[in-house]
Amino acid sequence: MSASVGRNLNALRRNGPESDGPSPLASSVVTDTSTTDAQARYDVLRAAELSLDMTRGNPSPAQLTLSDPMLTIIGPDDVRTASGLDARNYGNLDGLPEAKAIFGPWLGVDPEDVVLGENSSLALMHDTLMFATLFGVPGGTAPWGEAPTRWLCPVPGYDRHFRVTERLGFDMVSIPNLDDGLDLDAIARAAADDESVKGMWVVPKHNNPQGWTLSDDAVTFLASMKTAANDFRIIWDDAYAVHDFRSDAPQLASFLDACRSAGNEDRAWIYGSSSKVTFAGGGLAAFAGSPTNREWLLEHRFAQTIGPDKLNQLRHVAFLGDFDGVKRHMAKHAEIVRPKFDAVERVLQANLGGTDLASWTRPTGGYFVSLDVLRGSAVRVVELAAAAGVKLTPAGATSPYGRDPSDRNLRIAPTFPSLEAIEQATEVLALSVILASR
Amino acid sequence: MSASVGRNLNALRRNGPESDGPSPLASSVVTDTSTTDAQARYDVLRAAELSLDMTRGNPSPAQLTLSDPMLTIIGPDDVRTASGLDARNYGNLDGLPEAKAIFGPWLGVDPEDVVLGENSSLALMHDTLMFATLFGVPGGTAPWGEAPTRWLCPVPGYDRHFRVTERLGFDMVSIPNLDDGLDLDAIARAAADDESVKGMWVVPKHNNPQGWTLSDDAVTFLASMKTAANDFRIIWDDAYAVHDFRSDAPQLASFLDACRSAGNEDRAWIYGSSSKVTFAGGGLAAFAGSPTNREWLLEHRFAQTIGPDKLNQLRHVAFLGDFDGVKRHMAKHAEIVRPKFDAVERVLQANLGGTDLASWTRPTGGYFVSLDVLRGSAVRVVELAAAAGVKLTPAGATSPYGRDPSDRNLRIAPTFPSLEAIEQATEVLALSVILASR
Repeated sequence: MSASVGRNLNALRRNGPESDGPSPLASSVVTDTSTTDAQARYDVLRAAELSLDMTRGNPSPAQLTLSDPMLTIIGPDDVRTASGLDARNYGNLDGLPEAKAIFGPWLGVDPEDVVLGENSSLALMHDTLMFATLFGVPGGTAPWGEAPTRWLCPVPGYDRHFRVTERLGFDMVSIPNLDDGLDLDAIARAAADDESVKGMWVVPKHNNPQGWTLSDDAVTFLASMKTAANDFRIIWDDAYAVHDFRSDAPQLASFLDACRSAGNEDRAWIYGSSSKVTFAGGGLAAFAGSPTNREWLLEHRFAQTIGPDKLNQLRHVAFLGDFDGVKRHMAKHAEIVRPKFDAVERVLQANLGGTDLASWTRPTGGYFVSLDVLRGSAVRVVELAAAAGVKLTPAGATSPYGRDPSDRNLRIAPTFPSLEAIEQATEVLALSVILASR
Repeated sequence: MSASVGRNLNALRRNGPESDGPSPLASSVVTDTSTTDAQARYDVLRAAELSLDMTRGNPSPAQLTLSDPMLTIIGPDDVRTASGLDARNYGNLDGLPEAKAIFGPWLGVDPEDVVLGENSSLALMHDTLMFATLFGVPGGTAPWGEAPTRWLCPVPGYDRHFRVTERLGFDMVSIPNLDDGLDLDAIARAAADDESVKGMWVVPKHNNPQGWTLSDDAVTFLASMKTAANDFRIIWDDAYAVHDFRSDAPQLASFLDACRSAGNEDRAWIYGSSSKVTFAGGGLAAFAGSPTNREWLLEHRFAQTIGPDKLNQLRHVAFLGDFDGVKRHMAKHAEIVRPKFDAVERVLQANLGGTDLASWTRPTGGYFVSLDVLRGSAVRVVELAAAAGVKLTPAGATSPYGRDPSDRNLRIAPTFPSLEAIEQATEVLALSVILASR
């Protein structure tokens, strides 16, 4: 933005009181003064013809640059694996042991519990569900596609998850989250009632979009709850396993251990990737699970592919070293990411703190802030922001079928833009929330 | 092998007359003398405790080394695409235009006809068929999985193809090849007769395993033949498109052009990869087809994945340059591969030439020699070779369901072993053919 607009912004910015966020469902009357003021500030920003994008959880260039040494780390003398295989050639369907060794502690499993895929954990999730639909899974009696399949969807959630289960024709059952995590009782009831409920999505740590991390008790609960289906699976998308950016980020208990202790070791389908650790387009994706699940997956993967890119596995091994190396690397990401989340918090607080127009999350890691606005106004907020040059994830994206019946949840992705752009975009967003409340 | 065994081999090697190969179906009596001789030579080789593998079409280390400069060719200053995108980040589901530009002429299509995948064209074929099974394809009225689906399988063929269609539950219809190509009339009859016949496999150039290349007329025939199914597809696995190793290797006509001319542009599903050009485990896979087919595939790919590894695309662009660069690079492969095929020919000819025990192909490119032995003896040949330390692709692998009713076809893969190992292994193979005929 131009310097003059920047000065205007600073002059116009309010310093609201600290607040834990009121209920966005509370009815609210905003004073004429504040909406008039907001309109004036919105008009200034709109006139600046911004072009800002807060839609997707992409790493910023500075984050990607952290991994640039990985680009050239494997040369002609480095193409042999630890066991002497030539990584340039075919083979090793399940991945190199030295790469699995990194993902074991990452996903709370032993290295041998890991199966490595290509560059996208979404693809591993998609393909797992596709195999289940066509062929069924161990413990079941038929392919899931042969009968109506219901799938539990904690809401708000990840739009790309919902797209997969929608396309496969699963009947998605929304289970609204509590403020601080899953509604475990509602999940347990739904899973226990109905044999056609075959599983659920969950992002257990730094949840997308709400940011909470499941407590140890919640992990145990999900591992041990009774399910009507004998072939029930939980897609444990541990996408943000190592993505803490505050020191008080909670630990996530091992889901595979919990499932084993409960006698349900086949319930866990665990996924992770290095997309937001090294390169978003050139990372490694991993699956982890019981021997039965791994054998099942590898049988299907053997029909599907000649094998994953082992050179990229070697690059990751050479660059990250081990899991401690991953944590050291992620500390560098945290330094870049944390100020951006601080900025979102600061600008939201300054503009919406002390009002009852919105509540939002204050994550300790991950990639998103979840913003709840007044019921029925999320679509309007997105329109207003767009009109002022700020692209937000469409309202409804965090719900199955893209429909948020309350029209109140928005997902903010602050990692990619610059700090200045985030401040501007969040200001536009906050003002749009105020204007949409009129 | 030890030098002494080598000398024995040379002393024992016969110089048979040139032959175009007799019919392996002809009944044959081998003289006692020749089998006694063969037994003695087989015993010498067996005592040498060889451990040789002729099972899979893997490039040799020397071939892979040709592409070693590609490992480090993309550094921190090279991560921008031609259009300015950051290849390290998410995005570009269909692949970078500069990488498509290489695959256009490679696959006989325009660059914009190409969709890039991950590192395995088998995976693209598998996934295409999986999408067809679950969702159907343009031109059809229902998902293929909703009714019995039949699939034409030219035989001998590629075992990994057959595995895919077997697992999807397609009824695989074997169409025995003629000596020099497909049995087009039989294919046309099968396709015209039955609406449940949804398509076929074909490796059109340097066929796996027979080595022939489809003539222009054959390409036109396949593009224009009448099919009962309105959603008929030909999986055109152009795996060896650029893999000539003799100067008289034939050209393959453009299948997409032929289909367009015939008004059947949606019939062509074309696939290729750089697995046997750059790195077998770290190449690029490509799909090509009509706008309708591309849109269909990308719609499903959008649900499946965040996008392919663009850094690996950039590596290929920087290393190969353009399609002329591909051809120059493949000329280097040819220098390495040709002597190995020469050796197979020489040793087979020396041992089996002039007998009516076997016939075999003399490819001008690709990765395989197809060997037909006496009906009913292929399994025994593989056993005898294994007992002497030479691993061959299992008999039957070149037929659907792994069952060769004639028990006569074997696939030889001479690219990976050293020249000396190939000579030994082929000698063992030839002697096993003789011994199995007793």
